[in-house]
Amino acid sequence: MSANWCGEAAAVVTLTFDVDAETPILARGRGYARHATTMSHQAYGPEVGVPRILDLLDDLEVPATFFVPGWVAEHRPGLTKSIVERGHEVAHHSYSHRPPTSMTPEEERADFVRALEVFSAQGVEIVGHRAALWEASWQTTELVAEHGLLYDSSLMGDDRPYRLPTEHREIVELPVHWSLDDWEQYAYLPDPHIGSVIESPLKVLEMWRAELDGMRHYRSLFNLCAHPFLSGRPGRALALRRFVEYALACGDVRFARCRDVAEAAAADPGLTRRPHRAPETDSLVYPR
Amino acid sequence: MSANWCGEAAAVVTLTFDVDAETPILARGRGYARHATTMSHQAYGPEVGVPRILDLLDDLEVPATFFVPGWVAEHRPGLTKSIVERGHEVAHHSYSHRPPTSMTPEEERADFVRALEVFSAQGVEIVGHRAALWEASWQTTELVAEHGLLYDSSLMGDDRPYRLPTEHREIVELPVHWSLDDWEQYAYLPDPHIGSVIESPLKVLEMWRAELDGMRHYRSLFNLCAHPFLSGRPGRALALRRFVEYALACGDVRFARCRDVAEAAAADPGLTRRPHRAPETDSLVYPR
Amino acid sequence: MSANWCGEAAAVVTLTFDVDAETPILARGRGYARHATTMSHQAYGPEVGVPRILDLLDDLEVPATFFVPGWVAEHRPGLTKSIVERGHEVAHHSYSHRPPTSMTPEEERADFVRALEVFSAQGVEIVGHRAALWEASWQTTELVAEHGLLYDSSLMGDDRPYRLPTEHREIVELPVHWSLDDWEQYAYLPDPHIGSVIESPLKVLEMWRAELDGMRHYRSLFNLCAHPFLSGRPGRALALRRFVEYALACGDVRFARCRDVAEAAAADPGLTRRPHRAPETDSLVYPR
Amino acid sequence: MSANWCGEAAAVVTLTFDVDAETPILARGRGYARHATTMSHQAYGPEVGVPRILDLLDDLEVPATFFVPGWVAEHRPGLTKSIVERGHEVAHHSYSHRPPTSMTPEEERADFVRALEVFSAQGVEIVGHRAALWEASWQTTELVAEHGLLYDSSLMGDDRPYRLPTEHREIVELPVHWSLDDWEQYAYLPDPHIGSVIESPLKVLEMWRAELDGMRHYRSLFNLCAHPFLSGRPGRALALRRFVEYALACGDVRFARCRDVAEAAAADPGLTRRPHRAPETDSLVYPR
Repeated sequence: MSANWCGEAAAVVTLTFDVDAETPILARGRGYARHATTMSHQAYGPEVGVPRILDLLDDLEVPATFFVPGWVAEHRPGLTKSIVERGHEVAHHSYSHRPPTSMTPEEERADFVRALEVFSAQGVEIVGHRAALWEASWQTTELVAEHGLLYDSSLMGDDRPYRLPTEHREIVELPVHWSLDDWEQYAYLPDPHIGSVIESPLKVLEMWRAELDGMRHYRSLFNLCAHPFLSGRPGRALALRRFVEYALACGDVRFARCRDVAEAAAADPGLTRRPHRAPETDSLVYPR
Repeated sequence: MSANWCGEAAAVVTLTFDVDAETPILARGRGYARHATTMSHQAYGPEVGVPRILDLLDDLEVPATFFVPGWVAEHRPGLTKSIVERGHEVAHHSYSHRPPTSMTPEEERADFVRALEVFSAQGVEIVGHRAALWEASWQTTELVAEHGLLYDSSLMGDDRPYRLPTEHREIVELPVHWSLDDWEQYAYLPDPHIGSVIESPLKVLEMWRAELDGMRHYRSLFNLCAHPFLSGRPGRALALRRFVEYALACGDVRFARCRDVAEAAAADPGLTRRPHRAPETDSLVYPR
Repeated sequence: MSANWCGEAAAVVTLTFDVDAETPILARGRGYARHATTMSHQAYGPEVGVPRILDLLDDLEVPATFFVPGWVAEHRPGLTKSIVERGHEVAHHSYSHRPPTSMTPEEERADFVRALEVFSAQGVEIVGHRAALWEASWQTTELVAEHGLLYDSSLMGDDRPYRLPTEHREIVELPVHWSLDDWEQYAYLPDPHIGSVIESPLKVLEMWRAELDGMRHYRSLFNLCAHPFLSGRPGRALALRRFVEYALACGDVRFARCRDVAEAAAADPGLTRRPHRAPETDSLVYPR
Repeated sequence: MSANWCGEAAAVVTLTFDVDAETPILARGRGYARHATTMSHQAYGPEVGVPRILDLLDDLEVPATFFVPGWVAEHRPGLTKSIVERGHEVAHHSYSHRPPTSMTPEEERADFVRALEVFSAQGVEIVGHRAALWEASWQTTELVAEHGLLYDSSLMGDDRPYRLPTEHREIVELPVHWSLDDWEQYAYLPDPHIGSVIESPLKVLEMWRAELDGMRHYRSLFNLCAHPFLSGRPGRALALRRFVEYALACGDVRFARCRDVAEAAAADPGLTRRPHRAPETDSLVYPR
């Protein structure tokens, strides 16, 4: 039996859904709570998108991971349970969706812990974390290690899982990338401005297929990040379905929850270890 | 006979045209009235686009709904009549096209009422409303209910019609979405900046077909929002025609005016009711 | 013989080239003259693009109109002659390429006249004008009429030529549109920011074909605006060639210089007359 | 034997890779060193992208040129050696990646020299230079000539190599262009904002093929600029491979390092000489 993180597969697909709901908007200013249309645009995610995606995953018999901000879990009490009872993973996606780089270390720590408390109160076991807006600080992965989680999924230093040394112990990083995020393809909102281009689902399907082919060539982790308020819409859900069908038809692609990949990666003695520290900068070279 | 809002159809298409003319530009600053080219760019909508679209609808024998700001109806006296006498619906699209979220509650109310007065003076019956820039406040739907209208079409909480409780009574929401708006695909204007990408009509046609296919799968409302100053142009009008022909050829798609969909939805006992209230926010969680 | 502006043709194509060179950049700040790469990017237009385009037009035996800022004609003395002697039209494109809406009426007038003086000194007959950045003021067309020109090509009120009343006399407007401009498709420059998307020439070719098909349907003026610093590049010049070949193969498309279209339009008794005046605005309705 | 810079080929392809790593981000503010995700996004270039690209070049047996900022060479000591020993060229790409137009002449000179010192200490022979962000000042090419380099590759005045007079002597310019840069197609980063659109590798492949076809028509230099942190990703690396395979299959395209093209160009008596000086600007014409 192979001890390689991806086993016999040419590439591994982790379908992940960031159930952000209203949080990324409120993080831009709580005054946006006054914007009724925008709030309804975000509520669509947990209300319409998540049930539709859960049905789609059932149909296709593939597992997934849902990254949920603590605030969202708290405000929609049945949400995490509805995900877990369908066999999927719920993971930590901050409490407020404020990015770590915008907070003091103390604020980030408090936000991190508060989310853990929400999940604990709901009886949801958490082994992985993803930073809000993919804006991790250097402290972020320390918090992940310190609180006993197995993996982080916020960095972009590779396209395969890698070991990340921290002060406490090693964790596994399941790297993400902007090109495997539906936000850049679909998100449009003028105020707050979160994106300005709306691509066709056919373009997105084409691009994800091309990226999967590249990853099968290079034996990578296709760590897809989709948002229920975006990819939960009818035409996009259909494109997601076509993508999964394509990947299944390849015959050499494995679908897994993030926690399963992280466990396999942690057990792989050949996994790359990548240093993780801030570059030193000199104010004479970079005066700004 | 089915009491379901969509009857026997797999999806319902409401073709809606927002006849904004100069108003979205003047709402950005009345000084833009000095910009002759920009004013002509907007005037194209009612002057060239609307007659062309009315002919296209006649040709294809499909009904439509035209959302008209009161200011536009007032400044072009024959406009609403030319629409109504071809069998289409005229609906309320604010007076000034200033977004409700940018106004005080009193300003929004005055703007709302002033538009109703214009339509009343022109003998146009109004049963539906759409907020300017899809930037409804929480008061917006209260105004819709208070003034006896049947439906609103400004929110994004679903992709099917839904019931919306208000202080006065329930109204029907016919939800919109950025992905079914021609603005994001075609609008380009550097000053004021209203958009910066010009997509090919073929991309737009492809995307709308993909979305309609998704909506036929999920039994949704394809609530298309087009603007005569954009989709009235020759190549885009041709793409719109191809889209309608595609939908008609599907055999399971129904075309209707918004008011007809709203009436069917109001009569459907199984229609989803969605709560409609501002999320509570805590300044400790969201300090900005 | 038909007195209709487009004769027997289904659509008329005017190939126009705005030879802006450095002017749109300097108009954003004369300090950009310090940016050597950016200056070379703009100089490519007259130095490499124009000769290539002149050869392409010869090959395909189609006429064109070149809108040249007076500053450019002055700084590159042989330029206008090289265009005229190949049978093409040179037209007025301001002196400095500063947009009329950014100038006082006196500044706009002085800029307008100074360009006429340059062309006069070079022995170039001028009968048409296009405002810099398509940002005409209400005075712009008055200046065109007052100085005896036949046509303007800066407005967007139709997709066919139209009559424009001025205080002096009627002129002909040959309307432009953002969707028939290569700038929105190809221009990229971060500082000054003039655009941020670079489309494939194949997308542009597809879009222009689709627009021409629409215009053949509606009997319109395909008034293409290309820039030698953009469309003069190899792959784009090839796409322009393919477009012209497509239009020629249609069999019902006529190519003409702007002046020829303007003369035919002026002689067409059925040509639409469009009012041309600033909308009245009320500071109570539009307070900003 | 032909003395023409491109020999018998219809077009010449120089594959160039700008190994920027963290520098373009730190140049926007050294505070970005706090952003762990962003730093990992940039580190991917030298850590994952460069080895993958070196293997790809070996497979396809084509040479390339790597433009490396001195700071990057210094912080990753084995990098330049790993490139040179595979037969490729390393060239000068500033020390800090701060654009020359943002520095004083003294700062630019110091930055230029410091990079030369790094390369000298690493035993890397340097004959060419490319300005950071393609934002050369008028001094930039003087520095290139003064320090005895053979060529610059930062300007956009042509699509073929050209002679550039300087105060010291003539150098060769190998011009670049935004349309042959992968940054505009792939770069996405919200903070600092470096780009906002993520195109499909298939679109990019199509566009580069179209541009190569145009360049074969016009006998030009296809000076591709790719970034390992962008084009090193799996799907994009596959598209790059497809592009090279397409060019090789054309049969009339030659691949070369920049230094080889520059040497051939320097020896070509028919090479165009282009003036290189700032346009004179008049504060009455351009008051800003």
